[in-house]
Amino acid sequence: MELITTNRIDDTVCPIARTAEIISGKWTLLIIRDLASGVKRFNQLERSLHGISPKTLSERLRSLEEEGILIRQTFAEVPPRVEYSLTEKGCDLVDVIESMRNYGKRWLCNAAN
Amino acid sequence: MELITTNRIDDTVCPIARTAEIISGKWTLLIIRDLASGVKRFNQLERSLHGISPKTLSERLRSLEEEGILIRQTFAEVPPRVEYSLTEKGCDLVDVIESMRNYGKRWLCNAAN
Repeated sequence: MELITTNRIDDTVCPIARTAEIISGKWTLLIIRDLASGVKRFNQLERSLHGISPKTLSERLRSLEEEGILIRQTFAEVPPRVEYSLTEKGCDLVDVIESMRNYGKRWLCNAAN
Repeated sequence: MELITTNRIDDTVCPIARTAEIISGKWTLLIIRDLASGVKRFNQLERSLHGISPKTLSERLRSLEEEGILIRQTFAEVPPRVEYSLTEKGCDLVDVIESMRNYGKRWLCNAAN
């Protein structure tokens, strides 16, 4: 019985907790949202994410790449071109983020706030 | 420009962060899931949520009631009957939780873990 209980809780909580973990952090969310509309270069992301430092943007991009959320492609041009795009795992996350955003907008964060 | 930037980040992050906040905590998730299948009495929830203490269950239920996620109805019987059900705000949350769970199960928590 103890085992069943534990499994039930793990099965319910683990996937939700892990998803929440991935999307925590404002830059992560904004990067995923920007890439949801298509491939972007480093400079485009930097311009779009007002206030992010190149160092922080590099770190966030690398960590999302390690998580398999996005792909980094380098083209041997002068100057070298680097492009970022969402993987299937990243695209799926956009739907989750949108459903949380819609819920929050409807019930938790009033336009007046 | 500064103002626009701040608004954009707030508008993106606030609803998502607030939603994540509400659904954090394993008992909260399990209570909402149990109520998603219909009205429940205190004892039914206690039996279903193996391992929860009556004190913790009371506290979680009260806090979800204050958030407007569930309704508590008391019936003047002997012994008194108390029933809990989801509000519209609570029902809407079930969809968000399901989308996070599906994502997590597909991409983050393997059955083998």
